[in-house]
Formats: sequence, structure tokens, C-alpha cells
Amino acid sequence: MTTIQFKHLLSAKDLSRDEILTILDTADSFKEISTRTIKKVPTLRGRTVVNLFFEPSTRTRTSFEIAGKRMSADVINISGSSSSTTKGEGLIDTARNLEAMAPDILIVRHASAGACNLLAEHIDCSIINAGDGTHEHPTQALLDMLTIREHKKTLDGPIRVVIVGDIAHSRVVRSNIYLMNTLGFQVTVVGPSTMIPIDMEKLGVQVSNNLEEAIQDADVIMMLRIQMERQNKNLLSSLREYSNYFCLTKERLKRASKDVLVIHPGPVNRGIEIALDVMQGPHSMILDQVTNGIAIRMALMYLLIGGSNESMD
Amino acid sequence: MTTIQFKHLLSAKDLSRDEILTILDTADSFKEISTRTIKKVPTLRGRTVVNLFFEPSTRTRTSFEIAGKRMSADVINISGSSSSTTKGEGLIDTARNLEAMAPDILIVRHASAGACNLLAEHIDCSIINAGDGTHEHPTQALLDMLTIREHKKTLDGPIRVVIVGDIAHSRVVRSNIYLMNTLGFQVTVVGPSTMIPIDMEKLGVQVSNNLEEAIQDADVIMMLRIQMERQNKNLLSSLREYSNYFCLTKERLKRASKDVLVIHPGPVNRGIEIALDVMQGPHSMILDQVTNGIAIRMALMYLLIGGSNESMD
Amino acid sequence: MTTIQFKHLLSAKDLSRDEILTILDTADSFKEISTRTIKKVPTLRGRTVVNLFFEPSTRTRTSFEIAGKRMSADVINISGSSSSTTKGEGLIDTARNLEAMAPDILIVRHASAGACNLLAEHIDCSIINAGDGTHEHPTQALLDMLTIREHKKTLDGPIRVVIVGDIAHSRVVRSNIYLMNTLGFQVTVVGPSTMIPIDMEKLGVQVSNNLEEAIQDADVIMMLRIQMERQNKNLLSSLREYSNYFCLTKERLKRASKDVLVIHPGPVNRGIEIALDVMQGPHSMILDQVTNGIAIRMALMYLLIGGSNESMD
Repeated sequence: MTTIQFKHLLSAKDLSRDEILTILDTADSFKEISTRTIKKVPTLRGRTVVNLFFEPSTRTRTSFEIAGKRMSADVINISGSSSSTTKGEGLIDTARNLEAMAPDILIVRHASAGACNLLAEHIDCSIINAGDGTHEHPTQALLDMLTIREHKKTLDGPIRVVIVGDIAHSRVVRSNIYLMNTLGFQVTVVGPSTMIPIDMEKLGVQVSNNLEEAIQDADVIMMLRIQMERQNKNLLSSLREYSNYFCLTKERLKRASKDVLVIHPGPVNRGIEIALDVMQGPHSMILDQVTNGIAIRMALMYLLIGGSNESMD
Repeated sequence: MTTIQFKHLLSAKDLSRDEILTILDTADSFKEISTRTIKKVPTLRGRTVVNLFFEPSTRTRTSFEIAGKRMSADVINISGSSSSTTKGEGLIDTARNLEAMAPDILIVRHASAGACNLLAEHIDCSIINAGDGTHEHPTQALLDMLTIREHKKTLDGPIRVVIVGDIAHSRVVRSNIYLMNTLGFQVTVVGPSTMIPIDMEKLGVQVSNNLEEAIQDADVIMMLRIQMERQNKNLLSSLREYSNYFCLTKERLKRASKDVLVIHPGPVNRGIEIALDVMQGPHSMILDQVTNGIAIRMALMYLLIGGSNESMD
Repeated sequence: MTTIQFKHLLSAKDLSRDEILTILDTADSFKEISTRTIKKVPTLRGRTVVNLFFEPSTRTRTSFEIAGKRMSADVINISGSSSSTTKGEGLIDTARNLEAMAPDILIVRHASAGACNLLAEHIDCSIINAGDGTHEHPTQALLDMLTIREHKKTLDGPIRVVIVGDIAHSRVVRSNIYLMNTLGFQVTVVGPSTMIPIDMEKLGVQVSNNLEEAIQDADVIMMLRIQMERQNKNLLSSLREYSNYFCLTKERLKRASKDVLVIHPGPVNRGIEIALDVMQGPHSMILDQVTNGIAIRMALMYLLIGGSNESMD
């Protein structure tokens, strides 16, 4: 297998087209392992993977934990809060202490944008960014690319993507846009003006407030989760209004390309950002994404820490 | 080893006499593993066991975790709350997402009766009910049967069982009664009227409010844990009154069969439902039950997901 | 390898000089494992290690978990609160129940001094005290000895140690003083009078309130963490005053021996008990201590439960 030349995965922005394809190819080759009766290979035996989650995320933590264990790594889960004691100097001290225990890789989730980059400047072991504030969530974007490639067969040619929802607060969107730009996709972000940053076009994407227009001939529609807790007090009325304009219904979906893929980082608010029949319909890739998440994380751990396989036993 | 023909263990009610005996025989054969220096067999290597606990339960979770690890499975612990987001559709979505990560079995505890049955209708991988509301807790009942058989040598012949305590709110009782009925035991439930459902006789058991009468010649006495948090504000006075009538004392125990077994699902409120000298006396099977819990859970995991042993490595 | 003759590690006070040296020698030999690519030996395969933490401690729990996994043990994490239900009889019942699951060793942290001793009287499997109230934290003291020996090359000869901070509330100090007395160190404790127990001299140490005097020619300076939550309401003013007198600054450090070692059980309150340049300077052993913690815990698990290696598979 090919390898990559960096030791951390902090940002999707850092990845070249070749590196993205190497990661996807590696994920392809690992994906089959999870379909076996004995879902286990010795690749990372004796490696120590630390899930360092300062924000709770059962789904992402579980995906990394399963990925590590299927490669025979020892996985250690550490959960904390992104409190003042684990920001800035406190975060660095915490990570340095962990590093003194000789982990091979830290999988880090933190509420502060840039937390992973800060750590990478101060510690030596590999780091994967598992979501830092509203900054990035590169493994989620990579699993989206894997899902798209699986179904479109190729990432060449102009792929038209529409991303719908709270663009401003989504780290998933940011990581996806970086990858999609690198791969030459055509991206349109859609949402109410209040949910779209003013300088969005600088990221090389088109902006729209009209889902029905934007969706026209789309190859991929990425729906984002509405963060209920970010809504104002008139929750129900504002949700209903949001849904009126931006919920992906079966009717609206007809405007897209006939083999359009619908993706969503999950968990879905049923009937709010996406209608039940679309969520469970043939275009929905939501569970494929979860399956591909395991493969992408296995691939990244292999590429970042599995390279030197010499046993010193 | 024999196998069984179902893929979930949702309810003790579903089990035939032959199936119960197959599970107990399998548990017998696995029990010895935990007495070794090296308590580990490769039986479930590369299988993924997910402990999905929406209600906290250190004891039951630990028992399943140890059982899985001793069979070399990868065990993933997920804890959550039985909140609105994990009921009904939310629960199904959560489980479907997990299923996309290719676990072999989900061990599920949930505050809602029927949660496991709901999941079994919507997902494909095996499920073991580790306690759902006041509905069932079949592995606890099975470990009770294993304990009774070990000490009585046989489950044939009329075994007289008295179950004492808050019958109405106990999932353990319900699962035990199903198994005991199938096995032909004679069951009497005992407790204050407020703790016994009106239609209890429909389950094929006798009802009594008098412990001293009911206990006469009993072969097995199952004491239930008083849920302190369910008691009213006059906690101490009501507990004292409860104990006066229903605490299993040494004196009362004399009325039972001379080789009576005392079982309790734990943890015990010492001196409330059971006197200290009885709890620690020769009739008490409480720690045997815990030991047997590991064996029963190993057996069930083997029977449900260990069947097809062909390696595809 | 040599072995030791006790089955628990409850207190540093129990250890003879020979036993301490055996533990350190064993740790030395295990330390190299964590520097390998494949950080894993089969020594404790099939052993069950239970981390039973009634007080949260990510650092200590993680250290034991990594130590256990690198020796191939199955590690089970159990966290609880040191509530009334897990004191006294409740604690004993909890541990007895766990013991019925056939663990090989319980690693116990509890808020009550003496909790581990209480358990050792009532259960049969090995116990390591991972911190009990203000009583002891023997593995922390042992890793300190390992760190000192590594850098001083020998523990013979008079080693002058100064321990600075809240002596009264530190279990680490107590365990260190026991080991240091056994090894013949000269120990001075330093702190404000309010933080030093009246009968401190009975432990065979000197007492001082003057850091600058006490530090003169010290070979080892152990700084303690100020427990912010123990300070009174005038937190900032009292912290500032504390720092004025007791913070280990570069200036003050010059009074010590030229190859003085600075140790700290962590996590450090930067700039309060220790200045940043000292913490990150050449005398600081803080990260070495963390690394040595893994080795000490591997050694103890090996010595306590790894002795009888016959496989019964």
C-alpha cells in the first residue's frame, strides 16, 4: 500500500488530491474487513490509540474505537469537558502528560476551533482531529468522499453538490468544502441568510437561499443537522418555518439528478431537515456513510501510525 | 455443542424447556473458563459486542463486558440516557446507525418496556435484552435457573419457589416466572398488596401477603431489592414496617425446606429485605448468582453469534 | 525475575527496602516495552484487571489501563462515586460482587482513607491502592522512587528531599515519606503552618516554613499541587500570597544541589506552585514521572498476579 507523508490529520485543507485518493483507496481495501465473521486484522497490534474527547460524541468515538479494535490496537477512551482547565496551556499539559504514556495516536475532539493544531505544535505523537469547534471535522468529510466515489464510481468530472442548512456553525461543511474544492466539485451552499457567513464565496462556493433552485440537477445533496439548542426560544415556530423552506422532501428531490445521493452527517432530525421517506429512500446514503466512517478511520490510523511494521518483540 | 434457532434473546417467555436447558448446559461448559489462570478462549475473536446501556447498570454491564472479553470479543461500551431522543424513532435511528458499524450483537438496557422488541423489528444484528423497563431481564432469570440447577442437581420434579418483595415493579420477577412456568415450578409471590399487580394469578402463580405462611417448605426463596427511590417520604417508617413483615430472617428461614436456596438479584439492602446472617449464611446463593451471570452471558453470546466459526481471514 | 511475597499493595508503609528495590528493578525491565513499536507482551493474557474508581482520576486510571493492556490483560473500567452506598458495608458488598466475577486484581481509588484496607480484609483477590482519601497513594510514591533512582543512579547515600505544599491533605506525601524513610532519605516538609499537621515530626521528617532555607543543597524537590477547591474564598489573594512564599522559581532553585530533581505528582498549576521555566526546565522530571508510572504499574501487576504463569487452556 502507498503511504502518506504527514503525521497528523488536522485539516481537510491540508490534503492534496493524491493524498485524498490514497486515503480513499486504503479505506476501500480495509472496508472488507468489517464484512467478515472475524472482523480483526493484526495491523496495529501493540499500538495505543487514545480517544481524547473533550466534547461528548458517542457516534464518532464509537467509530474510532471500533476501527482501532478491528486493527488490534489497544484503545483507551478518555472523556473530559472543554473547560478552562483543558484549554490553552491546560490542554497542552494534559496532552503532554498523555504523550508521556507513549500513545501512538491521539484522536481529539474539542469545543475550541484550533485545539488540534495547538496540540500538534506541542506534542510529538500523531493526532487526528475528530472535530474542533466550528473549525473542521476532516474524517467526516473523507467518509463523505468515500461514499460519493463508491456510488458515482469516479470523482473526476464535474460533480455538483448542494449543502443545505446551518452553514455557519458546521465544521463538517468546512472540511467538505476543502476536499470538494481540491477535487474540483461545484459546490452550492443553501440556507437562511442568518445561517450563512457573509464571506462564504471566498471559500470558492456559490451561495443560495432557495433550496428548490439550487437543487436543480444536483449530483449530491448534503443535508446538515439543525442544532436544536442553537435555535431561539420560539423553537417550534422557527423549526416549522425552517422546514417549510429547507426540508428535503420527496417532491423537492425530484428536481435533482436522477441518481442523486443524499448524505447527512447524522443524527437526523426526522421531518425537520429531511423527510422520512427521503431519509429511508433509495437515494439516502446515511447508513453507508456510517459504515464508511469505520473504513476511513481504519485507513487513517494505518497510514499515520501503521507504517513501520517491524516487530521489536 | 448444540445451538439454538433464534437470533435474539428478548424475553424469557420465548424460551422452550429445551432451549432453556441448552442455554444452561452451554453455560455449564463455559463456567470453568473463569476458574482458570488464563481466563480466555478465542471463541468470539473478531466479533464486536456492543453494550448499549440507556440506563446505568454497572453490575450488568460489567458482567457482559467480562463475558465478552473472556471469549476474545471486542467489547464497546456505550452509555446514554433513556431520554426522548432515544425512545421510539430516535432509538431505532441510534441502533440502525450502530448496526451500520457491523456489530455482531447489541446488549441493550433501556428504561422503556419493549425497547428491545422494538429494536429487533428494525435491525438485523442479534440483540440481548439486558433489562427493559419493568418488562423483562431474561439473562438474570437464566442465571437464577443455572444457580438452582447447580444446587438442586435437577430442574425436574416440583420445585417450590417463593418470590418476595415489590413484584409489581420487578422485571426480574417477570422473566423468572416465565422460565419457572415453562420448567414446571410452583411459584408463590409474596409482598404487601400495594406491590402486587391485581391480575397476578393470570401468570400462573399463587399470591400471598404472608411471608411466614408462604415460605413453608420452600425450595427456593427469591428476595427482591426494595427500590428506595420508589418509597414515599416516610421512608424510614415504611421501610421498618416492610422489614417487620417481609425481611428474610434466620428465624423465618427455618420454616423453609432444610436445603432451601436464597437468591437475590442484588445489590442487597442489608437488614431491609434480608437479614445479614441470612445473606452471609450457607443458604445464600447471592455470589454464586453473580459468578453464574458471567457463564450465562458467555453461553448466550456463543449461542447467538458464535455459531458460524469459519474464519475468513 | 524475583517476586514479592504479598498479594496486595495497600500502603507504602508495608514495603521493606528489598521489596521496594524488587519493584523498581521489575519496573526497569518493563519500561522498555513502552518504547517499542509493538508495545505489547503476553505476560497477563487472560487476566482480568478491574479499575474500580470511586473518585474520578483520568490520569491514574489511564496509566493503569495502559499498563494492563500492554501486558495483554483484559481491563474493565468501573467508575462510581464515593457515596454512602459505596462506603463501609456497601463498599464491601460491591467488591464481593465484583470478586464473584473472578477478576485477578482490583485497582481501587476511593475518597475514604482506609477503603482499600477494609476491602483487603473482606475479599480474596489482589488489590492495589490507587489513592484512598488523604491516606496513601503508593504507586505514585513508587514511580517517584523509580524516577529518582534513574537520575541519581543509586538510592544509597543520603538523599536530601524537600516536599513543598499542602502536606496535611496529601496522600502522595504520606506514601513518599514512608518509602523515603525506609530508604534512608533525609526529608524536610515545607509549607504554611496551616498546611502542616502538628505531629509531623513523628513521621521522622523535619518541618520548615521557609522554602528558601529548606531548599539549600536539596537533591530532590517535590512540589505538591495546590487544591484550588480547598482554598478559602479570597482565592486569588491567598494564592498570590502562597506563591510569593512557596512557588518554586528559577531563582530559588539555584539554592538547591546543581543536579537537583524537581518532581510533581501533576497536574501542575502553572505559576502557582511552580514557575513555568522551572516546570519546563532541565531539572523537571514531571513527564519522566508519568512515563515511569506505566512501568511501575506494569511491574506491580506482574508481581502481584503474574506469578503463576501455567496456562490451563
